[in-house]
Amino acid sequence: MKAIVTVTLKPSILDPQGEAVLHAVQGMGLKEVKSVRIGKHIELEIQGGDETTLKKKLEQISGELLSNPVMENFHLDLRTGG
Amino acid sequence: MKAIVTVTLKPSILDPQGEAVLHAVQGMGLKEVKSVRIGKHIELEIQGGDETTLKKKLEQISGELLSNPVMENFHLDLRTGG
Repeated sequence: MKAIVTVTLKPSILDPQGEAVLHAVQGMGLKEVKSVRIGKHIELEIQGGDETTLKKKLEQISGELLSNPVMENFHLDLRTGG
Repeated sequence: MKAIVTVTLKPSILDPQGEAVLHAVQGMGLKEVKSVRIGKHIELEIQGGDETTLKKKLEQISGELLSNPVMENFHLDLRTGG
């Protein structure tokens, strides 16, 4: 089983790295791009365990360890058989 | 329109940041997690433009600017109406 945790900055938080990428992207001719936000993509490979228990633990870890709840949101995606 | 570019390290490339997170996750009791790999999640907000042309340009930019083709793979996901 695979778990994908996507961590993104909350909309109210400034993203200077995204701003820098935005300017570079526009400089390469893509003027249609209006904003860029950069987050983290975390892939966890999981073996064994009960899915319901795992999901609960993964949500806890995503909120406490993988993301900073003051500044970031997270999205957990469990993929069985991947 | 939104474009999501996910940049991940190639499987042959070591990921020390992922290793550190793996140990932390296991230390929090999730022994079922066997590996962690960390990548980038890049969200681009797009206004206007022709979808086919945009897609071609975005693929070029994903490969040349947003990822390092020697060490990383990328996946481009275009979401209309998002």
